[in-house]
Amino acid sequence: MSAEAEQQRDTYSAALVIIGNEILSGRTQDSNTPWIAERLTTQGIILGEVRIISDIEEEIIAAVNMLRTKYDYVFTTGGIGPTHDDITAESIAKAFGVPLERNEEAFRMLEEHYGLEELTPPRAKMSLIPAGARLIPNPVTAAPGFIIENVHVMAGVPRIMHAMLDHVMGMITAGKPILSNTVACSLPEGTVAEDLERLQEKYPQLQMGSYPHYRGGVLGLSLVLRGTDKDALGAATDALIEVIKAHGDEPRALSIRSTD
Amino acid sequence: MSAEAEQQRDTYSAALVIIGNEILSGRTQDSNTPWIAERLTTQGIILGEVRIISDIEEEIIAAVNMLRTKYDYVFTTGGIGPTHDDITAESIAKAFGVPLERNEEAFRMLEEHYGLEELTPPRAKMSLIPAGARLIPNPVTAAPGFIIENVHVMAGVPRIMHAMLDHVMGMITAGKPILSNTVACSLPEGTVAEDLERLQEKYPQLQMGSYPHYRGGVLGLSLVLRGTDKDALGAATDALIEVIKAHGDEPRALSIRSTD
Repeated sequence: MSAEAEQQRDTYSAALVIIGNEILSGRTQDSNTPWIAERLTTQGIILGEVRIISDIEEEIIAAVNMLRTKYDYVFTTGGIGPTHDDITAESIAKAFGVPLERNEEAFRMLEEHYGLEELTPPRAKMSLIPAGARLIPNPVTAAPGFIIENVHVMAGVPRIMHAMLDHVMGMITAGKPILSNTVACSLPEGTVAEDLERLQEKYPQLQMGSYPHYRGGVLGLSLVLRGTDKDALGAATDALIEVIKAHGDEPRALSIRSTD
Repeated sequence: MSAEAEQQRDTYSAALVIIGNEILSGRTQDSNTPWIAERLTTQGIILGEVRIISDIEEEIIAAVNMLRTKYDYVFTTGGIGPTHDDITAESIAKAFGVPLERNEEAFRMLEEHYGLEELTPPRAKMSLIPAGARLIPNPVTAAPGFIIENVHVMAGVPRIMHAMLDHVMGMITAGKPILSNTVACSLPEGTVAEDLERLQEKYPQLQMGSYPHYRGGVLGLSLVLRGTDKDALGAATDALIEVIKAHGDEPRALSIRSTD
């Protein structure tokens, strides 16, 4: 499904596949998900699902093939380096049923970065790209990512991924920014649950969530309203503030996110 | 599949389902995955996959039903509170084709915590548990999690989840701790790739990963060896140190994780 070919919509959908045993072992905290989610949100792309999988070929193929038909965009991070466990490009080629072949542009990028002498076989492997894919430049370590149909394959190292995502986001069809208002209070969740449900029914175009948290040992509650309809968001936020006041509390913090 | 009924194995497999729009919107960083992954690892349970999904009934049902047949254990976090978007218990009941019913033990826990007067309908909703499930106590806010077959349903608030996981881990059949050694160096990944692949072929019982990272703007490399076979892990680590020295570098840090 190519979102680019369609007329622009308010929002698009996306899934993220994080390929990396280091996240699954607990060794590394995944910082790519919030970064990508935040970035997509500002461009009207709703992240519908994240899968963290290990570097097993069948797992990568199954996840990518399932998600690329379900979501407008798929993003992957990880597994495009030079070592034996970097099998993303080969797995994506198999998922699309296309050959994995030396990409001359990618080879030139690597040659320029490393010099021909330092371009060892493991490094040259990073020029193998699924046939028909477009490259995503890597300004940090040269080895490119790539785009095939609606699947965007990026590096897992955050610094490199950030640059690749910048490049990708400049190219894809975006929607309206998803705005979100957060109202914090000290009411228990059970106290506002019914009012919140009524508010959700009144504003079905908004997504409303309720998130209890502990800070400094004190239980607090963040109420989050999200959507692309600015007027509805404003009205619902005002109504929510009244709800909190009606229960004898004051909204303690109020963050309004907008691109205006 | 009940792991408890089998003879003890070296390792077991698990999947984690994180139910929460707040992670997918980028609002909240997921800290539950590394916590759970780390804890499982010490008890010989390999986390094979994580899915972060939104609070949509069909998504929860599909994920849980797929994963509970594929992995020994499934853990879920999130969506067991009192608000309209807390639909995990209902979805899990549907996934197993059992009724969602008032659990008297859960009701008593909630009554004791809130008092009958404060036990509003949204709070009483938290006593609705799939038929046949066993409860996981919640020492923080009373609303329990539950276990149905190999699926362990926990709260999403980290502080509550930690207590629930402690309870669960004391009950389930564990394997041998998965040990891991990390050797850091300043060699580029492409330099050690071929040696690492040879080492992986020599020790197929270990999992070997190579993770470049930037710290203070300097590119470094962490090489991670993991497995339950302590002797193989020690020998492979020694061999890896020799590889790094042969390339003219010194291993800069060495963390050995073991339960001894």
